Amino acid sequence: QNASNVVLYGVVDEFVTHIKVEGAGAVTRLDSSGLLASRWGMRGREDLGAGLAANFALEYGFNADNGSAADANRPFNRQSWAGMSGSWGEFRLGRQNTPQFFMNGKFDAFGGATQASGWNNVTGTAPRVDDAVGYFTPVLANVKAQVLYARGAIAGAPVAAESRANRNIHTAVEYEIPRLYVGLNHEIIDNQSLAFSQRRLGLGASYAVTSRWRIYAATGRETRSDGSLNQNLYAISAGWQLTPASNLAFGYFKLKDRLSGAGHGDADQTSVLYRYSLSKRTTIYSALSHLQQHGLRNNLSLGGAAVVAAGARPTTAVPGGSIDALQLGITHSF
Amino acid sequence: QNASNVVLYGVVDEFVTHIKVEGAGAVTRLDSSGLLASRWGMRGREDLGAGLAANFALEYGFNADNGSAADANRPFNRQSWAGMSGSWGEFRLGRQNTPQFFMNGKFDAFGGATQASGWNNVTGTAPRVDDAVGYFTPVLANVKAQVLYARGAIAGAPVAAESRANRNIHTAVEYEIPRLYVGLNHEIIDNQSLAFSQRRLGLGASYAVTSRWRIYAATGRETRSDGSLNQNLYAISAGWQLTPASNLAFGYFKLKDRLSGAGHGDADQTSVLYRYSLSKRTTIYSALSHLQQHGLRNNLSLGGAAVVAAGARPTTAVPGGSIDALQLGITHSF
Amino acid sequence: QNASNVVLYGVVDEFVTHIKVEGAGAVTRLDSSGLLASRWGMRGREDLGAGLAANFALEYGFNADNGSAADANRPFNRQSWAGMSGSWGEFRLGRQNTPQFFMNGKFDAFGGATQASGWNNVTGTAPRVDDAVGYFTPVLANVKAQVLYARGAIAGAPVAAESRANRNIHTAVEYEIPRLYVGLNHEIIDNQSLAFSQRRLGLGASYAVTSRWRIYAATGRETRSDGSLNQNLYAISAGWQLTPASNLAFGYFKLKDRLSGAGHGDADQTSVLYRYSLSKRTTIYSALSHLQQHGLRNNLSLGGAAVVAAGARPTTAVPGGSIDALQLGITHSF
Repeated sequence: QNASNVVLYGVVDEFVTHIKVEGAGAVTRLDSSGLLASRWGMRGREDLGAGLAANFALEYGFNADNGSAADANRPFNRQSWAGMSGSWGEFRLGRQNTPQFFMNGKFDAFGGATQASGWNNVTGTAPRVDDAVGYFTPVLANVKAQVLYARGAIAGAPVAAESRANRNIHTAVEYEIPRLYVGLNHEIIDNQSLAFSQRRLGLGASYAVTSRWRIYAATGRETRSDGSLNQNLYAISAGWQLTPASNLAFGYFKLKDRLSGAGHGDADQTSVLYRYSLSKRTTIYSALSHLQQHGLRNNLSLGGAAVVAAGARPTTAVPGGSIDALQLGITHSF
Repeated sequence: QNASNVVLYGVVDEFVTHIKVEGAGAVTRLDSSGLLASRWGMRGREDLGAGLAANFALEYGFNADNGSAADANRPFNRQSWAGMSGSWGEFRLGRQNTPQFFMNGKFDAFGGATQASGWNNVTGTAPRVDDAVGYFTPVLANVKAQVLYARGAIAGAPVAAESRANRNIHTAVEYEIPRLYVGLNHEIIDNQSLAFSQRRLGLGASYAVTSRWRIYAATGRETRSDGSLNQNLYAISAGWQLTPASNLAFGYFKLKDRLSGAGHGDADQTSVLYRYSLSKRTTIYSALSHLQQHGLRNNLSLGGAAVVAAGARPTTAVPGGSIDALQLGITHSF
Repeated sequence: QNASNVVLYGVVDEFVTHIKVEGAGAVTRLDSSGLLASRWGMRGREDLGAGLAANFALEYGFNADNGSAADANRPFNRQSWAGMSGSWGEFRLGRQNTPQFFMNGKFDAFGGATQASGWNNVTGTAPRVDDAVGYFTPVLANVKAQVLYARGAIAGAPVAAESRANRNIHTAVEYEIPRLYVGLNHEIIDNQSLAFSQRRLGLGASYAVTSRWRIYAATGRETRSDGSLNQNLYAISAGWQLTPASNLAFGYFKLKDRLSGAGHGDADQTSVLYRYSLSKRTTIYSALSHLQQHGLRNNLSLGGAAVVAAGARPTTAVPGGSIDALQLGITHSF
């Protein structure tokens, strides 16, 4: 009778990387969350009858190389929600992944992760938000949509301010048939702690040319109302399934910056990623990446699966500087 | 042979609330821990033979709306103890729930939770303490008692200070027969970080008038040795079990303040709570609450199951101001 | 097919202690992590075929007396690694136990824990390090070895600094046959946040004189390149297995300080530890310890299994002061 069916799960992802940063030397180091973000979590689904279910997820991101929390202020920084699902779709209440998080992983042949994903290195879309109400439609005619609305409670903030601030609206629609995927998403962020309103639009598609080759293309546009951000993103990539266990992905990414001045300028990245699955749960990966900044741009970095570790990534102080890196990692899911 | 029997369990409780605060406007927001405090935990019981058992509980409270810890200084803020039990009762060593925590939930028809429980909104009894030795008697002639003594180690504090400070003594006795419950508790808190000694006394009872109706009454007295607190609490409420799955609770709460001056004055609250169980593990709830402060009082707020989130609750700056709220939530246990 | 086999495990260790510190009075208090460090964790092993396995461990230390984290900066402070093992040995990537941690527990009859272990109270070997690559050899001719190399990524640190700093090298070799154990370990720590390079050497052995008696001896040497540390450690102890469930251990420990001045001087400790296992998972223990400092030394303290709580341990302000303590605890594993 309604026995608990909690699933304890997680990922431990560790990689060694050698990064050469123009004008700042080179570093070899161990780090976490290259292909998948290191995490542990609990999730469950309770069948309530008549097609209805109660669902929850609690997901705690961490830096596997040193045991620290990915977000010291939010232990369950990746997911913390309860909700219900039925034939009418699903709703979730709490901190949850944005449509952008789900979709960025489908926009390139790198799964939107590792140092190889230029798209992931540059896009500023929010991967998840607090205090959100999310709704997923069921799949209708191969189409599904997601809407996420958040108006966050800020601890200790006065009432009047809370009622106006922190409006996040994320929307997305996806079309998928056996060989083709197309996704479109949009986000608006109005936050009382920000001096601007922010909008980001993303469109991506992939197509299975043969059973072994899949090609990907994506484009994005990111702007702020105060004119401090105005850029376009372009990514093309291809994945080659050499064997059932091994995949080789190639890609080219381009950032087109419409602004000028300190820190501004275009950038492009060329990358290769090789993944070999030792089992369904254990994968070895290696990425080779070349990121070239142009003009006065000097603030990009190579990331991984976890956006939160951005502060620890090496950047260059040289305008138009390049970053080259080799990454070799293991990701184990449990 | 003594296989581990750890149980992984938890609660995710999310609610939407609209709160109208006199003189401070209204807010609609998502929050955590309305009916039950969001938490995850591990607990276990090992049978040692001869009626003896070793027991432990580790319970981590969190704010499900944003994934933050309920107490950033104490991940296992709700329970962290080991102990033993037998025919002679049970002892527990570590951070643990006070008798007040257990009993407040039995003092009104709201389970001492949601915004509807005036008793929970006002009482200042400590729900749990660090470094405690607790003892529970077995049930004898329908009576059981609990004693909890704590003399906390403070990290880095000098020895002499530790030996005198932080004396908490919590005592409780309960009488329960099929239709009647009576509970009495008392706490004394002498803490070196406080300028006063604090005492709180609580007495409550409930009686099942019919199989569907249960009535509750409770009274409390709270004082501080320096005269900064001197108040009486009164609560009456009734629960109506409409169907096996649905319960409607009504209640009236009165605070009688014996002091005057800024922040002082009486208060009363009238509330209704409706709970509908979709299963043993999933419940939907809705509360309607009206809290009216009198005199110069302006510091009360509507809470939930978790005492720790008090800082985030809206209060009014208007002396004698009222707070009205509607709360709609879902609580899922796993 | 590669089903998840994560094991959820842990320890809750609580003890009451009475500590008498010369010149600073006495304290009676509850504390955590006497015999074993309180912790919870997840670990797993996935068989990949051909003798190969993928392994991981995540281990979160906490103070069971108050529910706080053992290391607020690193929730998984005790272990956070992934790796692989096979007939060639095992490698681990991430935060992990040093050879010193494993070996100190084998150097005296107290398991290198409780207030009774003078060796544990004094040695400054690092129990675990961040960002490490560790390798364990297989057992060959009753010998096994461990090497651990760490070059830690520091969040936000510039690239050039990262490439030079934080070099930890830990090495160890062990020889074990049915009645005899011999272990030797060495550590070098060069950390950019330290003004010196630190070296520590440890050598220990134990021998089963009869089936009930085992004797232990160990010696260590600890130095810093700037001359701020220069000391030798000596420990002898014996364990008497009174019954299959009960063990009585005696020991004498000597610190020989080669430096003089404030805080310097020799020390010795005499201790007794009694352990009684109620089951394989639940043990009651009691230790009686006398630590005598000499010269100007006044900074030693009695610890437990967890090194992290050192800041909370009472020390004496009296040069050459003594510390006497009685410890009574329960440790429960799950």
